[in-house]
Amino acid sequence: MKMKLLLAGLALALGSGYTLTAFSQVKPDVLVKQRQAAMTLQGKYFGPMGGMAAGKVPYRADVVTYNASLLDALSRMPWDGFAESTKDVKSAALPAIWSESAKFKQAQDSFQDAVQALIKASKGSDEAATKAAIGGVGKTCGGCHQNFRQKQ
Amino acid sequence: MKMKLLLAGLALALGSGYTLTAFSQVKPDVLVKQRQAAMTLQGKYFGPMGGMAAGKVPYRADVVTYNASLLDALSRMPWDGFAESTKDVKSAALPAIWSESAKFKQAQDSFQDAVQALIKASKGSDEAATKAAIGGVGKTCGGCHQNFRQKQ
Repeated sequence: MKMKLLLAGLALALGSGYTLTAFSQVKPDVLVKQRQAAMTLQGKYFGPMGGMAAGKVPYRADVVTYNASLLDALSRMPWDGFAESTKDVKSAALPAIWSESAKFKQAQDSFQDAVQALIKASKGSDEAATKAAIGGVGKTCGGCHQNFRQKQ
Repeated sequence: MKMKLLLAGLALALGSGYTLTAFSQVKPDVLVKQRQAAMTLQGKYFGPMGGMAAGKVPYRADVVTYNASLLDALSRMPWDGFAESTKDVKSAALPAIWSESAKFKQAQDSFQDAVQALIKASKGSDEAATKAAIGGVGKTCGGCHQNFRQKQ
């Protein structure tokens, strides 16, 4: 019954799109590996955009549009990996993830909202607005890391 | 000049969507980590579908649609990570990736085509057709792993 409740909560937390099938069978260390993989790839596709927004890399509208579209998918991926079962697996995740779960959920939402704003901006032709939206995403990455990840 | 050629080839190989910005600055071990992350997440979202196609997990059309949509993004992610610069980084990648690059590219295309076929099938309501399309994706995973990855 507890698992049913957890899954129901998960479905609620993740909205209409979720991947709970076989979730209960996934080992904690695999969940950690998967969520870290999602963060790694968020870095891969956000990194160059961050460089563009900072003026360190030439601005390329097509790259921003493409990377933002992949970030759309990636922004949905890490969260179900922060299951309670992973609490004791060694990682940079802080206990606040589970003790302040509403705040953690809010930080996820802020990030996902910022990614959606970037996608919208990247479809226009306003370079400054798109760069600002990239900055907005970067801010929400940092917001979550600051409160919920060990200092690196 | 060599790098320009490589980037041009990469752009060609990846079609209109590519992420070459700052590519030349990415260290080989990071490229390997990123491509492995993409494979890890392909496993996360393909796994439950494979279970459904095999009749081991109850079929859930909404989960298939959602997972297939994420697999769409993930199916585009690993390939630029197989840069020549990563040849000497320890991984399960076989030298055939670089010595038979046309065949490797073909294997990538087969996988991406199979994912697109699954996305199409998953939007219909034919469970058997969707399960067959899941099987089609699984086959192309295996096809690539068989020729280009060390036996695990």
